[in-house]
Amino acid sequence: MTRLLYELAGADPAQRFSPYCWRTRLALAHKGLEAEGAPWRFTEKDKLAFSGQGLVPVLVDGDTVLSDSWRIAQWLEARHPDSPSLFGGNSGPVQFLNAWADSVLHPALARLILLDIHDCLAPKDQAYFRQSREERFGISLEAVQAGRERDLPAFRRVLQPLRMVLREQPWLGGEGPAYADYILLGSLQWARCTSPFRLLAEDDPVFAWRARGFALFGGLAINAKGYTP
Amino acid sequence: MTRLLYELAGADPAQRFSPYCWRTRLALAHKGLEAEGAPWRFTEKDKLAFSGQGLVPVLVDGDTVLSDSWRIAQWLEARHPDSPSLFGGNSGPVQFLNAWADSVLHPALARLILLDIHDCLAPKDQAYFRQSREERFGISLEAVQAGRERDLPAFRRVLQPLRMVLREQPWLGGEGPAYADYILLGSLQWARCTSPFRLLAEDDPVFAWRARGFALFGGLAINAKGYTP
Repeated sequence: MTRLLYELAGADPAQRFSPYCWRTRLALAHKGLEAEGAPWRFTEKDKLAFSGQGLVPVLVDGDTVLSDSWRIAQWLEARHPDSPSLFGGNSGPVQFLNAWADSVLHPALARLILLDIHDCLAPKDQAYFRQSREERFGISLEAVQAGRERDLPAFRRVLQPLRMVLREQPWLGGEGPAYADYILLGSLQWARCTSPFRLLAEDDPVFAWRARGFALFGGLAINAKGYTP
Repeated sequence: MTRLLYELAGADPAQRFSPYCWRTRLALAHKGLEAEGAPWRFTEKDKLAFSGQGLVPVLVDGDTVLSDSWRIAQWLEARHPDSPSLFGGNSGPVQFLNAWADSVLHPALARLILLDIHDCLAPKDQAYFRQSREERFGISLEAVQAGRERDLPAFRRVLQPLRMVLREQPWLGGEGPAYADYILLGSLQWARCTSPFRLLAEDDPVFAWRARGFALFGGLAINAKGYTP
């Protein structure tokens, strides 16, 4: 059985940078599952029509077609109960972390890397990206990113709850990494894959956790095409 | 065996408003455990000396003395494995929610109710509270709270991750309430116990969830001394 994961890619098909796709990539690795990656670009909506929607990740697993990283994680957990658990029980509270990443962390992080993301996109994606993101931020991509040195302290403050947890335990999952970690590692991998901008101070507990997380599964994240974090 | 919970109280000893004590109160109820409440004021550090620190909640359970709401919850879960679980498995990711409440939600919420809290304190606590909080905020209690109509939209935006989860599932715990819910219900109960200020719009999913949460355990939260939320 071939397992196929559609992943957002840049101009270079090896550059896979979507935070949502990385959640799924890391979840698959946690479960010990292989999946072939299929590069996909923002403007190739038609290629995902079979999934009934237009966003990645899309996982095709035998006859099953799944979209939405959260639903994929739930499905993987239910489908593979004998491999290491992604949630260690109740996944309810992890939904909060997922929502926090999407609604708080990502807007704060996007401000720092928006033009860099644009610059690694395939030419046909760049116009779409520029228009939709400039509409969202109300100014040009260049203007958003130009403020990143000024915005960096605010971004680091946003990470404060994560930092507090990592002072108490090595992983968001507790003693070992779990889906909670993969959500936020996916966010930081989004930045690593697209931008050389240094997000974290080296004495930040988040810095060390990120290094441990990127090294998991034989360096799955750190060996992907991207910058030195 | 008598179980005793030291709880922060206002001038009226029946007014128990600490968000951290409410986490423990709700956790005890979830476990089906009774505990006598002992009112405690900010300035009565000597009364907690036996616990080796100076903050509530402090739970005295037989020979065991515990402080810190998170550690108490962990202990209750381990000590009472046969009563309903507070975490439904791995508590790791719930730590994130705990840290988010402490570092993000509480500062945003305190701005709206700071003077109201002051006004319900015992006279001997008022001077301590005014000095420590004015130092923290850099302006008078009156000036902080005077901005609350202006600050209210920002507070409601802070709740966005909670709102997103409650659009998908009835409780942070998933299908049923769990410690993740008690953390944030404790925060909102802090406000209800001290202030008549209306925090939430009635069409906010957080509003309905709060009503369900305050009604749990025979109306434990809603029947405590406080305002109509």
